[in-house]
Amino acid sequence: MSIKLNIYPKSLFDDVMASKCEKHSKLRTIADMCRYNAITAVKKAGSGHLGSSMSSMDIFVALYYGVLRKTDQGANPDNHHVFFSSKGHDVPGQYAVLHSVGIISDQQLMSLRRLGGLHGHPDTSNPGIEANSGSLGMGISKAKGMAWAKRYRDLSGHVFVLTGDGEFQEGQNYEALQSVPHLGLSNLTVIMDSNKVQSDKEVNAIISLRNFRDKIKQFGWMVIEIDGNEISEIENAITIAVNSHDKPVFIIANTIKGKGVAFMEHIRAIPLNNGLYPFHAGAPDDDSFIRATNELYERNQNNLIKLGIKHQLLLPIDQNDAENHIQLNALGEPVSQTAPQITKIKGKAPYIVEAYGQTLLALGEEIENLIVLDADLSADCRLRYFENKYPDRFLENGIAEQDMVSTAAGLAKFGLLPVVNSFASFLASRANEQIYNNATEGKKIIYAFHYGGLIPAGPGKSHQSIRDISLVAALPNITIIQPGSSEEAEIATRWAVKDCKTSCILRLNIGPSLSEFKMPSDYLFDPGKGTFLREGEDVLIMAYGSVMLHEATLAADLLTKNGFSTGLVNMPWLNQIDDHWLRVACHCYNYLIVLDDHSPIGGLGDQLLRKMNQLNILEDIRVHVFGIEGYPACGTPQEALAYHGMDGVSLANRIQKILE
Amino acid sequence: MSIKLNIYPKSLFDDVMASKCEKHSKLRTIADMCRYNAITAVKKAGSGHLGSSMSSMDIFVALYYGVLRKTDQGANPDNHHVFFSSKGHDVPGQYAVLHSVGIISDQQLMSLRRLGGLHGHPDTSNPGIEANSGSLGMGISKAKGMAWAKRYRDLSGHVFVLTGDGEFQEGQNYEALQSVPHLGLSNLTVIMDSNKVQSDKEVNAIISLRNFRDKIKQFGWMVIEIDGNEISEIENAITIAVNSHDKPVFIIANTIKGKGVAFMEHIRAIPLNNGLYPFHAGAPDDDSFIRATNELYERNQNNLIKLGIKHQLLLPIDQNDAENHIQLNALGEPVSQTAPQITKIKGKAPYIVEAYGQTLLALGEEIENLIVLDADLSADCRLRYFENKYPDRFLENGIAEQDMVSTAAGLAKFGLLPVVNSFASFLASRANEQIYNNATEGKKIIYAFHYGGLIPAGPGKSHQSIRDISLVAALPNITIIQPGSSEEAEIATRWAVKDCKTSCILRLNIGPSLSEFKMPSDYLFDPGKGTFLREGEDVLIMAYGSVMLHEATLAADLLTKNGFSTGLVNMPWLNQIDDHWLRVACHCYNYLIVLDDHSPIGGLGDQLLRKMNQLNILEDIRVHVFGIEGYPACGTPQEALAYHGMDGVSLANRIQKILE
Repeated sequence: MSIKLNIYPKSLFDDVMASKCEKHSKLRTIADMCRYNAITAVKKAGSGHLGSSMSSMDIFVALYYGVLRKTDQGANPDNHHVFFSSKGHDVPGQYAVLHSVGIISDQQLMSLRRLGGLHGHPDTSNPGIEANSGSLGMGISKAKGMAWAKRYRDLSGHVFVLTGDGEFQEGQNYEALQSVPHLGLSNLTVIMDSNKVQSDKEVNAIISLRNFRDKIKQFGWMVIEIDGNEISEIENAITIAVNSHDKPVFIIANTIKGKGVAFMEHIRAIPLNNGLYPFHAGAPDDDSFIRATNELYERNQNNLIKLGIKHQLLLPIDQNDAENHIQLNALGEPVSQTAPQITKIKGKAPYIVEAYGQTLLALGEEIENLIVLDADLSADCRLRYFENKYPDRFLENGIAEQDMVSTAAGLAKFGLLPVVNSFASFLASRANEQIYNNATEGKKIIYAFHYGGLIPAGPGKSHQSIRDISLVAALPNITIIQPGSSEEAEIATRWAVKDCKTSCILRLNIGPSLSEFKMPSDYLFDPGKGTFLREGEDVLIMAYGSVMLHEATLAADLLTKNGFSTGLVNMPWLNQIDDHWLRVACHCYNYLIVLDDHSPIGGLGDQLLRKMNQLNILEDIRVHVFGIEGYPACGTPQEALAYHGMDGVSLANRIQKILE
Repeated sequence: MSIKLNIYPKSLFDDVMASKCEKHSKLRTIADMCRYNAITAVKKAGSGHLGSSMSSMDIFVALYYGVLRKTDQGANPDNHHVFFSSKGHDVPGQYAVLHSVGIISDQQLMSLRRLGGLHGHPDTSNPGIEANSGSLGMGISKAKGMAWAKRYRDLSGHVFVLTGDGEFQEGQNYEALQSVPHLGLSNLTVIMDSNKVQSDKEVNAIISLRNFRDKIKQFGWMVIEIDGNEISEIENAITIAVNSHDKPVFIIANTIKGKGVAFMEHIRAIPLNNGLYPFHAGAPDDDSFIRATNELYERNQNNLIKLGIKHQLLLPIDQNDAENHIQLNALGEPVSQTAPQITKIKGKAPYIVEAYGQTLLALGEEIENLIVLDADLSADCRLRYFENKYPDRFLENGIAEQDMVSTAAGLAKFGLLPVVNSFASFLASRANEQIYNNATEGKKIIYAFHYGGLIPAGPGKSHQSIRDISLVAALPNITIIQPGSSEEAEIATRWAVKDCKTSCILRLNIGPSLSEFKMPSDYLFDPGKGTFLREGEDVLIMAYGSVMLHEATLAADLLTKNGFSTGLVNMPWLNQIDDHWLRVACHCYNYLIVLDDHSPIGGLGDQLLRKMNQLNILEDIRVHVFGIEGYPACGTPQEALAYHGMDGVSLANRIQKILE
């Protein structure tokens, strides 16, 4: 990174609050200083959600500098007000405000998405975070439980939950919207950051909420609609909410996505970017970063001077710190320090998901009944090629995975071939019963489980999917495949659409491949059969997906260097194993190491053990399954892999120990 | 059964339709004849849902004798109207009407909940059924997919989906209610059988839908409210719906639960039964059956005479047929015919779930912070004892499993100990992501997975839970226990509430135990350690839960008789296995048979194989895992067990083959 990073230190916020000026002038300045800090934190992390951090910043400031001030709330923390964000994307903004009030240190603020640092989505292990979120739609229900508990225990303090607007495409919200008034919980307030934009399109273009104000009133809530970027309006609404003893209050806070930086504000940004909002997720490029921070810095400088603050020293940030905040990994061993810190691969790295998206586009031409379904992740899932070319065969469902999956069954009934897309962590778990119900009807449906596995590890455990194979493994008539390279992704996608007789799950790595294996000349994409990428004699490693195949290759190189002849198999078939192939593959090895980019429970390792036990070949070979133990670590890819002992160096060490 | 069963045969419905009288007089008579037949089918099956079969009967009749008549819809079935029920409880009523129009035969109608017969909830393998349902809230989404496909393929025909009213506590409905108008799908009509009652309480008492008419209007639907037990009103509303090309239509059909039999109608039945509606599920007792059928028979007789039909011969039903409609089981072998046909255990059979409910009640006294959560299954889950004694600690969530689970996290945050209840098939799958999210926060929550396993097999695959262990097995910090007897259920429930440090899942058999093991004198409820119920030398059987332990005992008896010394272990710990205990337990055996009341994927068998591989003891013992292969069979308990080769006789045969 060629640019310099710095933040407004905590001390400068104290100076602002100590000044004698009008409160709202001070709070507006603080909000913009926090915007500066949030952008810097995201820039340093290399990823994170800016658009909603900016839109909800004034809400955070109004809350943390108002009703949430600890000093006003007495000694017993159980009697304090509770606040958390249900959407969780806005957590860089929340961290910035938590930093400004001293709950998060200067140093912590710069640890966003790093191992041992601030999680990519809210996690109660971080200071000031009251609930885990990141997957949408759970917040009001959680707040309901808190409010019920407070009432039952006769505790004072109100429960505030911040939601998005697109988030109201998730059905769970309506369950809670219905039950909260039924239970008479007036100590709960929803604040909706209504910034009008979801991932990259307007809410009205994805699935309109229609007249949301009237809708919520019909659910029995008192509705207050305000300008959510005006701190005084937020304060007034909160005062009304805290004093409502009749109904729960729903505050519709109309905000601007990207608020505070002119070119990031959605009203300006969307027309400039062909109707798409570009600042929902991801770090800004250097140019955008400089423009954004310059605009904020200048405005802040003027405002600080008006407040009588002349010394405005910013705290410079070390951008190249390779510090690991946790010294021991998930296995209780020292974290390997030899692996380079890589936050993002630039250039022409192949993307498995890109190959998938391009193949879908090509198949659109060939297969007339192919319908692509999306749950507001079109860009991430690389569906936009298909969406733009075949808009009449692209079905946008909004953030409503259950509805999307059941809709697919209806499409399949009338002879269409639905390809259902979302992140694996959401699709496999939230729509699990719907996938099962569809499977019982036996019609062919393809599910693309994007973002499968540990990496990218920045977004944290709500997004990292290490249980998804286990969640679908017991379905009797579904084929689960994870391609190991972009080339294989094309082959697998074509096979799933054109050849596979059953429903099919494509588990896909979403990030760039650090390396991709060269297709052997005898390569065959044949159900149940893996591909030998190298032969050996001492130990056979079996892996799948581009992340683990890359690490496995590094490990195999190191092991070979140390004198252990190492075989490596790419095994894309996660729930089909050909008996004969497996017997032959294992025949001359004494050790089999299975690498699961998944929990060690319910992944490929379990499938292999079950099969090998049935074939009665476990006597001849020792099997070790390495998977992601515990919860997936948040951090850079290398940090997370090392933490779980799954980077090439750690793997080589672990395997060598076994062989010795 | 001492009473005689008979039905109105198909021919008599033809006679009615052939009479020259006014159409609605005929249809009203047909509806009551179908009510008679539905009650008889449920009585013969020994279980089934009557209340909503009766309330929605006039809707079924209006549809199948009106807009759904095949002869009016042309040759291409893709152009036909589609109708299905989202709630699915009402399927005995639907079957009765399908029978009356000749889609289901006289013989089939009497095969309700029998192997190879009519499923306990709608299944597309049965004639006339267009979608699988039984778990609530998916129907409008499926209808949306069908309507979208029809529009895309330029097919004519409308999509009708029948829902309940309590069903609108499920959030997925609101996802679809929001997206259908957004997509402009006016070829879709929802008919809500608004019978005002859910399992056994009024909807308004569980979670009120408030002014539902206005609510639905705000979602962008045209709403028509009618008397849903008046066929002419239903017909008129359907005509309006079919001709609406502007908005999708939502018909609120106000009905009476139990309609057609005076003492079963909810308005009368609820006050007579202490505020609870007793006819939602389950076959009526002999007295109620006789009263109900007598009332219907007399009214039908009068009406038939008015229609000029004098010969009203009813078709007598053989109540003791032990016929199996399918000759081969899931393993492709002949179904064992030796096992007795048992539909229900009478008398003082112990119930594991009863012990659970009584223990919760007792713990309510001991543990002040114990909160019991329910999703409208209080009676089935035996929560009513606690609910009645501690109403202020009983939290009714309605049919909204996701909201319930996330609510529990909020309760736990404020020091309460939530015990979350629903059927395993719903709780483990529909709320899977919420359980995961809660687990990441680390607060202790107890989940009771009721109805775990194959039995009872009558309700069909929406309710039979054979994937639930796999769905939670990869959670790092949850203990999963299935007690094997009512005595052990009490111990396990106490341990989970008072001793367990982590969150805990109690997997519970809901039906009566055919037999219960005698507690050995050295019994210990010790994490990871099973209990030897008998020692042996040749083969060790490991099982859990009362259903499989009963069959395992039968199998062990048979094997012993045939000269194979058989050990039997009760292993309630489904994801914790003590290393030392396992080594010792397996030490002197050559064969281990694991019985999974679950798919063979992801159950105890997989856990044991993983552990035994880690311990490197698979060389010394051959392991065979028997689980529920494929989808769970619908039928009587013995039919389903035999179909899957899991009854005592089949198990003994399968094990003996291995030993020989």
